[in-house]
Amino acid sequence: MQGSPANEAPHRMIRECRFGADVVVHPFTNLYGCAVGAGSRIGTFVEIQTGAVIGRRCKIQSHTFICDGVTIGDGVFIGHGVMFVNDKLPRATNSDGELASSNDWTLLPIDVEDGATIGSAAVILGGVTIGAGALVGAGAVVTRDVEAEATVVGVPARASTGRQLS
Amino acid sequence: MQGSPANEAPHRMIRECRFGADVVVHPFTNLYGCAVGAGSRIGTFVEIQTGAVIGRRCKIQSHTFICDGVTIGDGVFIGHGVMFVNDKLPRATNSDGELASSNDWTLLPIDVEDGATIGSAAVILGGVTIGAGALVGAGAVVTRDVEAEATVVGVPARASTGRQLS
Amino acid sequence: MQGSPANEAPHRMIRECRFGADVVVHPFTNLYGCAVGAGSRIGTFVEIQTGAVIGRRCKIQSHTFICDGVTIGDGVFIGHGVMFVNDKLPRATNSDGELASSNDWTLLPIDVEDGATIGSAAVILGGVTIGAGALVGAGAVVTRDVEAEATVVGVPARASTGRQLS
Repeated sequence: MQGSPANEAPHRMIRECRFGADVVVHPFTNLYGCAVGAGSRIGTFVEIQTGAVIGRRCKIQSHTFICDGVTIGDGVFIGHGVMFVNDKLPRATNSDGELASSNDWTLLPIDVEDGATIGSAAVILGGVTIGAGALVGAGAVVTRDVEAEATVVGVPARASTGRQLS
Repeated sequence: MQGSPANEAPHRMIRECRFGADVVVHPFTNLYGCAVGAGSRIGTFVEIQTGAVIGRRCKIQSHTFICDGVTIGDGVFIGHGVMFVNDKLPRATNSDGELASSNDWTLLPIDVEDGATIGSAAVILGGVTIGAGALVGAGAVVTRDVEAEATVVGVPARASTGRQLS
Repeated sequence: MQGSPANEAPHRMIRECRFGADVVVHPFTNLYGCAVGAGSRIGTFVEIQTGAVIGRRCKIQSHTFICDGVTIGDGVFIGHGVMFVNDKLPRATNSDGELASSNDWTLLPIDVEDGATIGSAAVILGGVTIGAGALVGAGAVVTRDVEAEATVVGVPARASTGRQLS
């Protein structure tokens, strides 16, 4: 692991991240405190927070947000505009009326296992595991665990007999 | 109110905005003609348009778009990738076939009252009020008013007995 | 057609694109290998890929992703945060476990015909045609063709008797 991606690009903010070999990070990205495995690619307009871990040979597409507590395996495809959530009931302020800090909530981790695919504009709620090879449809809102090799679609996401994004 | 946020950050476009004390605006943001109250935080990849007003101690998370006509109270949490809409039937061109201008449509205002939370990837249609302390689920599409302290989820958003994002 | 938009703006990445007269491209944009017709406007945080073709007098709003294989007619309105998809089953890696390349999938084209409107946060799956003057609701997930002048809403998108975004 090293401190920089393999490519150069303008308009990037990268602070205290660790990268495997041959990682490509596109312009207009904001990465801090995360780890990205060898051969993975990070698209434009992506933010990845401290504590997120991304495996090897993953594709993280444009406009996606990956928060603290998300662990992504190897060979995972994350579509465009995917939003991960790590809090069950986020609030701007705490019970004292002050801006909420990391002491005011419980982080709900998310695991995305090897070879899974998450369709564009899907939302992944905190606390779920998406099994190996699973497929999450485009625009789905995932509120429960998804079994390995399963396909889920819809709001909230339900099992589908198909094997495609919708 | 003052013309600059309290922090410095690269890759920002800020024009003719007013900020209260201790406002933090992250990089890769495009703010113009809006007002942001004291202590609020604006995430990366956020655009806020002329005419939008944001209260004090709010958190506006990454990838969110806030349009003209949106008024947000104090202590409001707006998740990641939330889209506000202020037009019932947007068109690219007017009846003369010319690019539509602000004369060609009626702005539908949106009010988000104090202490409300809007989950990530929610869409808020023009003309609605989201009451104080209300909770809008992740990925919900809000087409009607939401009562104070109510929880709504789904597409279109319906009342839920739960008290969480899904 | 020419190599630059009509306006100047900072924080843009524009490579090998063709523009008609009077095209406006806002800051924080990533355009490569696409064509944009006269009088169209491209919002902030937009990415448009090689092979995408956009007609004249279109509005492409902020946070939208337009992929290879998308052809957009004249006078089309694309809302904020709209995601186009051109692959039925995207994977990060191919059957050899290597990062997938353009040889490993079949591009599914999308046509959006003249005068159509696509609401904010809609998702358009590969292989569909959205007919002239059609209206796609905010947050809809379009999985089938939409007839000319029709309105569709929901997940997955179904015909609606209304004539608005929800």
